[in-house]
Amino acid sequence: MQFTEIIHQLNPLIKCHSLTASPDCNPDINGVAAVDEAEKGTLSYIEGAKFAHQIEKTQASALILPLDEALQAQATQKGIAWLAASEPRLAFAHAINLFYKPFKPSPHIHPSAVIDPSATIGKDVYLGAHVVIQANVKIADGVCIHPNVVVYPDVIIGDRTILHANCTIHERTQIGSNCVVHSGAVLGAEGFGFVPSPGGWYKMEQSGYTVLEDGVEIGCNTTIDRPAVGETRIKRNTKIDNLVQIGHGCQIGENCAIAGQAGMAGGVIIGNNVILAGQVGIANNAKIGDNAIATAQTGIHNDINSGEIVSGSPAMPYKHFLKVAAAYKRLPEIYQAIKQLKSQ
Amino acid sequence: MQFTEIIHQLNPLIKCHSLTASPDCNPDINGVAAVDEAEKGTLSYIEGAKFAHQIEKTQASALILPLDEALQAQATQKGIAWLAASEPRLAFAHAINLFYKPFKPSPHIHPSAVIDPSATIGKDVYLGAHVVIQANVKIADGVCIHPNVVVYPDVIIGDRTILHANCTIHERTQIGSNCVVHSGAVLGAEGFGFVPSPGGWYKMEQSGYTVLEDGVEIGCNTTIDRPAVGETRIKRNTKIDNLVQIGHGCQIGENCAIAGQAGMAGGVIIGNNVILAGQVGIANNAKIGDNAIATAQTGIHNDINSGEIVSGSPAMPYKHFLKVAAAYKRLPEIYQAIKQLKSQ
Amino acid sequence: MQFTEIIHQLNPLIKCHSLTASPDCNPDINGVAAVDEAEKGTLSYIEGAKFAHQIEKTQASALILPLDEALQAQATQKGIAWLAASEPRLAFAHAINLFYKPFKPSPHIHPSAVIDPSATIGKDVYLGAHVVIQANVKIADGVCIHPNVVVYPDVIIGDRTILHANCTIHERTQIGSNCVVHSGAVLGAEGFGFVPSPGGWYKMEQSGYTVLEDGVEIGCNTTIDRPAVGETRIKRNTKIDNLVQIGHGCQIGENCAIAGQAGMAGGVIIGNNVILAGQVGIANNAKIGDNAIATAQTGIHNDINSGEIVSGSPAMPYKHFLKVAAAYKRLPEIYQAIKQLKSQ
Repeated sequence: MQFTEIIHQLNPLIKCHSLTASPDCNPDINGVAAVDEAEKGTLSYIEGAKFAHQIEKTQASALILPLDEALQAQATQKGIAWLAASEPRLAFAHAINLFYKPFKPSPHIHPSAVIDPSATIGKDVYLGAHVVIQANVKIADGVCIHPNVVVYPDVIIGDRTILHANCTIHERTQIGSNCVVHSGAVLGAEGFGFVPSPGGWYKMEQSGYTVLEDGVEIGCNTTIDRPAVGETRIKRNTKIDNLVQIGHGCQIGENCAIAGQAGMAGGVIIGNNVILAGQVGIANNAKIGDNAIATAQTGIHNDINSGEIVSGSPAMPYKHFLKVAAAYKRLPEIYQAIKQLKSQ
Repeated sequence: MQFTEIIHQLNPLIKCHSLTASPDCNPDINGVAAVDEAEKGTLSYIEGAKFAHQIEKTQASALILPLDEALQAQATQKGIAWLAASEPRLAFAHAINLFYKPFKPSPHIHPSAVIDPSATIGKDVYLGAHVVIQANVKIADGVCIHPNVVVYPDVIIGDRTILHANCTIHERTQIGSNCVVHSGAVLGAEGFGFVPSPGGWYKMEQSGYTVLEDGVEIGCNTTIDRPAVGETRIKRNTKIDNLVQIGHGCQIGENCAIAGQAGMAGGVIIGNNVILAGQVGIANNAKIGDNAIATAQTGIHNDINSGEIVSGSPAMPYKHFLKVAAAYKRLPEIYQAIKQLKSQ
Repeated sequence: MQFTEIIHQLNPLIKCHSLTASPDCNPDINGVAAVDEAEKGTLSYIEGAKFAHQIEKTQASALILPLDEALQAQATQKGIAWLAASEPRLAFAHAINLFYKPFKPSPHIHPSAVIDPSATIGKDVYLGAHVVIQANVKIADGVCIHPNVVVYPDVIIGDRTILHANCTIHERTQIGSNCVVHSGAVLGAEGFGFVPSPGGWYKMEQSGYTVLEDGVEIGCNTTIDRPAVGETRIKRNTKIDNLVQIGHGCQIGENCAIAGQAGMAGGVIIGNNVILAGQVGIANNAKIGDNAIATAQTGIHNDINSGEIVSGSPAMPYKHFLKVAAAYKRLPEIYQAIKQLKSQ
């Protein structure tokens, strides 16, 4: 595909951003690549001026650049075709779609799938080999269920949702439209509800259910439990990475991003647009306000206000944490100084 | 069900606790709910006086209350039927059972299950679709194995144990009676046994096996390895949450509760009634005494005495940790003070 | 097997180490055991002088000892046969192989396996029950794929590689020879690539793939994502434990060992012979030099030099961390001292 054609196709997609193209340069582009691995004939991208050195070294024939005239001049001088966008990474995400079509099986039901007669299956559905669909499950149109997935009774799955191989959807789970559940994830299993009793841990039956609203994505081997009563809910367009634990009764807002190995105990309430980095932990019933951010390995025991950025375990404001962490490394010298001062 | 009938049915189950009912109030109850989501006709509960405000707001028609006369008077005044118990949460767990019957397939063997002829299968067993039972497996009476579970050779599974979908039970694992293994869990796989050698990591074969005693519950996607020699053992009535890692050769006592994403390396020995909160980590061969508690994200490198409550990484006594954490947040001001004092 | 026969068989395998045998003692050995669980007729081992007390207590009939004459004399005095090796644990790993043959199904293709006609299957391959092999998959000789594994299109699997039950291999993944992928692991799934956009998180398609070089071992329920462009690569002989998260585009060197629940975000580059202990976290794009070690729960945000040992979150040199951790526990007394000094 000629580079001008790429620009032509991207323009309406990222039209909220300004696009300019280098005037004289129109190479043939046959793929996309990371800038440091790019070969001749590929399109790559650079996020900002701190990656300027990669323009010198890259073999890419074309680059998506930020709105930075110095970088653009540098690319032009090296004979690299470029377009500029205010969000180069977003533009590159669109560019990948021009070259890559994700694997998607054509709609059909494999003869080895085991489907309860009470289940209802929409149009254009793919049910892969060895899929198990139990009683009263409702599968909407265009759903794609990869091999060896097990769907327990009374589950509802919305239009065009994809369930990847070997995941398990427990009874009464409700999954919206356009969701993706990655391999090995377990949705709607029993929450960890054990009550101390004279005879040991007494199991509180988990009569609730788990809900994913539209556009939610759940990573591989992530687990989202259902509660004793009521629901665990992941609101629309929230994206959850691999190996995340969501306890029973959690409510997670819209458009959040939760990174790998984060975990939350029961009853946590998270607002909209919240970002949790990797390995963050949140204790029972904590409330996290809209737009809050927790950096990696943060341990949250108390409520976090909207818009706050927190770090550390126990969590504290990020800016304060930077100072604490700097002093923390100096603790031996602090301790020495104290001993010396006391002896004076 | 009338509220007096609920009291009548709960009374023998929580007979160790005192029960009183509000005199004049006997609504029809058709379900259970969380107090802040309850609708008319539902029964809910409150754990203690700090939730008194929820009595004002709830739509529940009946409440389980603690033995607190002020709360009881408050409920009576609002026209809410109530019963009181010394352990309201435990009473509520029993109440759920009056309204909710967990999904359990009726005993039968699905024709797509693949069962080695040398396996022995007890009475009233359910083997779901695509289950694989390999050589010499012994399955006792009333066992329930959900679809797509794989059981390797020489496994023993006790009476009434439930294995949820997509879990994997490796060779020689012994599972007691009345256990529950949740979806995606892997029991008895090879421990991480690699020995440095001149040619790189040399694999130490893991000839041991994993044992779950009676009444053990294992969460979704949790992994419990087998050791090179001997056994990994989880003793009776211990409950383990999702995404927990139990290394080869660990011995976990009776009646423990281990929360999500906790992990322990090889050879850890844990006493009875121990509680590990979420994301706790325990290093190789550490010993944790009976009744010890580790709070979330604690990092344990050394032995912990019986009854100790520990926090922090590295772990220290919880009460001391609270003081340390308070001073930790003040490290920047401590550092400034030191600098100022030294300059004087 | 007589003890002298064990020595005879071990000698060529650990010939780089000096072996001596106690002169008069040649018991019959019928198995291997941990030293504290050993019964009469078993062989066990001791790693060093700090376990000397176990020689007194063990019931083992023979021991593998380090090159320590005091320990050897002690064993002789107790009438325990012994051999000595410079690496007793490695010698014991070889000894296990004399008594234990790991379970391996004989080559055959189960009739319930679903194999796309475009797949190519080598000689002596085992494909267990309900295995799914999709389009254009290439499976080399001697491969062993346990039940309920799903292999997406265009995957390549090298000679003698073992895939355990219920694991999922996503499209375009390349797995070398002599690899082991444990139960429930997910290789080559979509990286967590979401780009903020005016309409919410925009999904960056993950057009890359994941590569395991020869001799790599991946633990149960571990997840290794593929990137948007290029590859995620695990180099030869690296061993990864259970529940580990490897983000999109990571490059992990040769001969590394990564313990349970460690996790790394996208684009992390790790050198050769690196050891990450349990629950270590590494942030986006950090570089870890050859032979570096991170102790348990370390949080790495920046590059780590070759050969460095790091601890703490944020990470710092291990030796310094020991001092910091010691002073950290004394923070309350430090804070009190400051207050007192300031008031003077």
